[in-house]
Amino acid sequence: MIVITSNQTPQEQVNEIIAVIEKEGLQVHLSVGADHTVIGLVGGVTPKLAEHLRQMKGVENVVKITKSYKLASRDFHPEDTVIDIRGVKIGGENLVIMGGPCAVESPEQIDEIARLVKASGGQVLRGGAFKPRTGPYSFQGVGVEGLTMMAEAGKRHGLLTITEVMTPEYVDICAEHADILQVGTRNMQNFDLLRKLGTCGRPVLLKRGFSATYDELLNAAEYILAGGNRDVMLCERGIRTFETYTRNTLDLSAIPVLQNLSHLPVISDPSHGTGRRELVAPMAKASVAAGANGLIIEMHTDPDNSMTGDGVQSLFPEQFDSLLRDLEKLAPLVGRRFSPSLEAAPVV
Amino acid sequence: MIVITSNQTPQEQVNEIIAVIEKEGLQVHLSVGADHTVIGLVGGVTPKLAEHLRQMKGVENVVKITKSYKLASRDFHPEDTVIDIRGVKIGGENLVIMGGPCAVESPEQIDEIARLVKASGGQVLRGGAFKPRTGPYSFQGVGVEGLTMMAEAGKRHGLLTITEVMTPEYVDICAEHADILQVGTRNMQNFDLLRKLGTCGRPVLLKRGFSATYDELLNAAEYILAGGNRDVMLCERGIRTFETYTRNTLDLSAIPVLQNLSHLPVISDPSHGTGRRELVAPMAKASVAAGANGLIIEMHTDPDNSMTGDGVQSLFPEQFDSLLRDLEKLAPLVGRRFSPSLEAAPVV
Amino acid sequence: MIVITSNQTPQEQVNEIIAVIEKEGLQVHLSVGADHTVIGLVGGVTPKLAEHLRQMKGVENVVKITKSYKLASRDFHPEDTVIDIRGVKIGGENLVIMGGPCAVESPEQIDEIARLVKASGGQVLRGGAFKPRTGPYSFQGVGVEGLTMMAEAGKRHGLLTITEVMTPEYVDICAEHADILQVGTRNMQNFDLLRKLGTCGRPVLLKRGFSATYDELLNAAEYILAGGNRDVMLCERGIRTFETYTRNTLDLSAIPVLQNLSHLPVISDPSHGTGRRELVAPMAKASVAAGANGLIIEMHTDPDNSMTGDGVQSLFPEQFDSLLRDLEKLAPLVGRRFSPSLEAAPVV
Amino acid sequence: MIVITSNQTPQEQVNEIIAVIEKEGLQVHLSVGADHTVIGLVGGVTPKLAEHLRQMKGVENVVKITKSYKLASRDFHPEDTVIDIRGVKIGGENLVIMGGPCAVESPEQIDEIARLVKASGGQVLRGGAFKPRTGPYSFQGVGVEGLTMMAEAGKRHGLLTITEVMTPEYVDICAEHADILQVGTRNMQNFDLLRKLGTCGRPVLLKRGFSATYDELLNAAEYILAGGNRDVMLCERGIRTFETYTRNTLDLSAIPVLQNLSHLPVISDPSHGTGRRELVAPMAKASVAAGANGLIIEMHTDPDNSMTGDGVQSLFPEQFDSLLRDLEKLAPLVGRRFSPSLEAAPVV
Repeated sequence: MIVITSNQTPQEQVNEIIAVIEKEGLQVHLSVGADHTVIGLVGGVTPKLAEHLRQMKGVENVVKITKSYKLASRDFHPEDTVIDIRGVKIGGENLVIMGGPCAVESPEQIDEIARLVKASGGQVLRGGAFKPRTGPYSFQGVGVEGLTMMAEAGKRHGLLTITEVMTPEYVDICAEHADILQVGTRNMQNFDLLRKLGTCGRPVLLKRGFSATYDELLNAAEYILAGGNRDVMLCERGIRTFETYTRNTLDLSAIPVLQNLSHLPVISDPSHGTGRRELVAPMAKASVAAGANGLIIEMHTDPDNSMTGDGVQSLFPEQFDSLLRDLEKLAPLVGRRFSPSLEAAPVV
Repeated sequence: MIVITSNQTPQEQVNEIIAVIEKEGLQVHLSVGADHTVIGLVGGVTPKLAEHLRQMKGVENVVKITKSYKLASRDFHPEDTVIDIRGVKIGGENLVIMGGPCAVESPEQIDEIARLVKASGGQVLRGGAFKPRTGPYSFQGVGVEGLTMMAEAGKRHGLLTITEVMTPEYVDICAEHADILQVGTRNMQNFDLLRKLGTCGRPVLLKRGFSATYDELLNAAEYILAGGNRDVMLCERGIRTFETYTRNTLDLSAIPVLQNLSHLPVISDPSHGTGRRELVAPMAKASVAAGANGLIIEMHTDPDNSMTGDGVQSLFPEQFDSLLRDLEKLAPLVGRRFSPSLEAAPVV
Repeated sequence: MIVITSNQTPQEQVNEIIAVIEKEGLQVHLSVGADHTVIGLVGGVTPKLAEHLRQMKGVENVVKITKSYKLASRDFHPEDTVIDIRGVKIGGENLVIMGGPCAVESPEQIDEIARLVKASGGQVLRGGAFKPRTGPYSFQGVGVEGLTMMAEAGKRHGLLTITEVMTPEYVDICAEHADILQVGTRNMQNFDLLRKLGTCGRPVLLKRGFSATYDELLNAAEYILAGGNRDVMLCERGIRTFETYTRNTLDLSAIPVLQNLSHLPVISDPSHGTGRRELVAPMAKASVAAGANGLIIEMHTDPDNSMTGDGVQSLFPEQFDSLLRDLEKLAPLVGRRFSPSLEAAPVV
Repeated sequence: MIVITSNQTPQEQVNEIIAVIEKEGLQVHLSVGADHTVIGLVGGVTPKLAEHLRQMKGVENVVKITKSYKLASRDFHPEDTVIDIRGVKIGGENLVIMGGPCAVESPEQIDEIARLVKASGGQVLRGGAFKPRTGPYSFQGVGVEGLTMMAEAGKRHGLLTITEVMTPEYVDICAEHADILQVGTRNMQNFDLLRKLGTCGRPVLLKRGFSATYDELLNAAEYILAGGNRDVMLCERGIRTFETYTRNTLDLSAIPVLQNLSHLPVISDPSHGTGRRELVAPMAKASVAAGANGLIIEMHTDPDNSMTGDGVQSLFPEQFDSLLRDLEKLAPLVGRRFSPSLEAAPVV
């Protein structure tokens, strides 16, 4: 860490700062500049010391050099993390496709959609049993039964399943029924939920908060990793900007950036990322071209009657299928392997 | 609600749309324009129907007219809500001052700060026992003991207390020890937490998510109100923008806007809203001038050694006191009553 | 246009509103709802009338239905605009590559870079003679001589040229030397410049303001089109968000959205859009996958010594070449034609 | 300036970096840390060198210590700048009020509004002759005649005048007729315009770009100051955020921040900053409470018929008057002097 003193800080001030640092048993390197003195610290700096220094008289700036997350960083774990779930590999050169409705509505609905996801070559069935809704009067999901409906559909059609968990007390039951647990954008910094997921025994897909920085996303992942769960996927799902034409602004730079900073798989969600059906296919292709390790896409057999109203961003089954055919051709050109047949999960 | 059809939508399309609406038992009013037909709906429109229509062929736009929240709206409850907690009134013409450290650190620390808050004329003692931190390796708060330390300090000095609750399972114990429960910016849309607070029996201060719209904040409040808890305060604490000089951008327009849209008290947090000590006083005054019903301000006897590092935005006791003296003069000019002596909570 | 009256607007108010509309010779269609009356207008509505109505007592909302731009809209011109500059086609299925340094520095520099752009298959040479710089003490470009240096390099190597013009008085001289004139992000709403470009006789590449909406960008294009110049390209070059890791956030959704709303070619600038060399290639591929009609990319033979300091986002020649090789394979998969040899501009 | 090398940068890399620095005749101070080496530079660093270093292999970060603007900074000019225009003082403890219509429409309109501004105690008459409009088909202002209409109204009623100039070629004629020239938000980085204003002989009010950082605003001011014109006022007029309820988000923190960083007067524009009439008064008071040196407020005798449509944010004359009465009481409490009578400009 580096402490930069302000213009014309008296020597005694500088000495005080140095004293504070040395009191913590750290070494100091001084650079006396024309109008600034720069103090380099050698050794482990506690957040408390960092802040103490930042607040001392005469200090203009304190520059952290080391990242606040460790387990999530590429420095710590240079190789790509590849998560293997019953034969489906997520991460590295593999391209995983997760598809399904916004919400589980009925056994028939989820079963039919599962059949279609599988037929098109998807490996994971998505579907919400508990739905986070802006207002209390909107449809909140079918709840626990939804978990069983989806689990059965997944089993029947040889698909893994992913579902969102919103609160610590539901982690166990969700982990019982789903292969992957999803943290929604509004809960990226629900730290008690993250801690609980650190010990849930299931891979976790962590969605970026709609206004979270890359650093905050990686620190949120660190909560889960620090709990002992190393199977974490990061998900870009669109950020909030001034533009209102799209529901969110899908930030595809996040894909190469997160892959540079971290070893965790990066999944893109072009459905929530755009909020408009006509934009899902182009942004799905763009995500893969940017290097995404997978996609999570909303597909519905009857979007006009989806219970959440998110049907407006759901693909029709034929659109979903033709997109996957395009991705099959695109993937090899950008170093991604998408071979549905091989990677399909065995029916358990 | 209004449905606007696109340019040159064929009549049969329009008829289909009308059929869908009438099937739901609603009346229709048609306005046939030069290149658009506008369909007005009369009667209660379900979200599902709204979305169904939005997704139908030939529909260009669907305009909601009525707000998605009810109990929080000024239409529903024209008079200001005034919350009375053991004689301290929050809302209406009253100006309430909440002060204290970012985090409770020790019985001595919180007791001394409580004494100073009271001496300066504050009515509520703030302090965190559970701290939401970006990274898992930062100080996470002293936990449950912090609640008792703060409760005792509050009792001893005749102050109400407010503390943040981060997860549903801790609501009961927080409600046992604190007079007001605070929802932090990262949890504004932690819907299970909001539901639980709807039945906690304590007033709630709901902080605006750092990228939440006014509408989302009021919908979040609606979750608590719908649970039966009518004692909700809204808190503007700064939004995230492109500007990095300040920690957040304190949006003071939120104060008059929320007071127009809602009857709930609006509290301003200039400490988190700016993240810089030197900006707290001017923005506190500006908040009151804009019509705030109260302020929540960080004050610390030894900010340089605060355990969270938020000391950088904490006032020194003498700064806190001189700010309150200024506010005493300012308040009456903008229709606010700030009379510490009268409103001090009785020692219980 | 539609006027929505507020809750409980008295009939006389509604009548006043109707009177105002009819006074302008427009027809009215009424929809009387439960708690709102909706007034549809038939006929041409002036901005002045729209605002007048918005401001009348009892009016809750005024909804425009028709877009404020005409010539730029897909409704007005359903086919893709294809701009043909001496045999180089921009728009439709063609993929155009513009490459070169941030700034023209010397005849040798621009000539050598031109040679490399051509060798790799680029069709347009980019380079700034006049540089918009945040501060007055930074390098401001070599000025007029830069135009001739670039024009000669373009001629010698059979490349079209594009350069930025910052102010109306320089439009003519830039038009004399360059094939395409570029409007920078800071000047997207420099309306006098746009008007002048409407009659400059050269195709214009209009960069999106770093915080401009799609609608504002299309309205800016409308200024140029309305002046009689129909050869306008839109350019997404990154928007400003809260994220600071990248220089900007490249908004690739802009590509399909603008192509849906407009017939104008859409070019992507992954260099300014990311500000980091290592992100240019993945985002360039993503841009093409999203449907871009072309790319404008910074390339420099000695980026570490570029005079603007933008070298940090410039590709090395070998990186530029290998990117173009990848794009050659990618383009056909997304309906784009990139055949350098065929489309090279003849040496004039 | 400081150069931070990345994790595990080999010594030869570090030596290369040092060589580059010393080649420029600068001294180097080394701090060898656990996993980073920090290189401090002593002496004047050119932007080119800074960027060169940032781009060298092994460099993780380059931290500038000194600001890029000089004349605008408080370090350079510790005392508040007070601009004296024919007896009206702007800056320091003086509170200046600028009022008037969005656009000059007719001699009668501007004369009547001038009379009302003066009667309420305003010192400056605002009004646009040239209007920047998003679309080319909106009212663009009455042009040059508007300048004379406004100048006469100002003279007749003893008011200074301020008007917006959009392009360099109109600077001279605007300077001939108006006392203060205004740069609009879209032109904050129209550098040719700023340069021209540096020699125009008139005070300039520079509006913050709606997505400009404080640093960019101060650098834009530096362009004018560097040209020799020291009479510059900074104006906060609202930034663009995700919130759509207000036209912009008025960032009042800008007031104390800019006053800390700079000696230039800071004016607040609550009309454009909110875009809603009902928010102008509370935000005007909040601006003064935050320390603003002045306000620029839209007032119109017949806002419903304003030609720009901005009437929706214009105060009625009686609202303008009662606001000024409130400000008269508020000003002294925050160290501002608002004495209309004394500061009225003499009729010339």
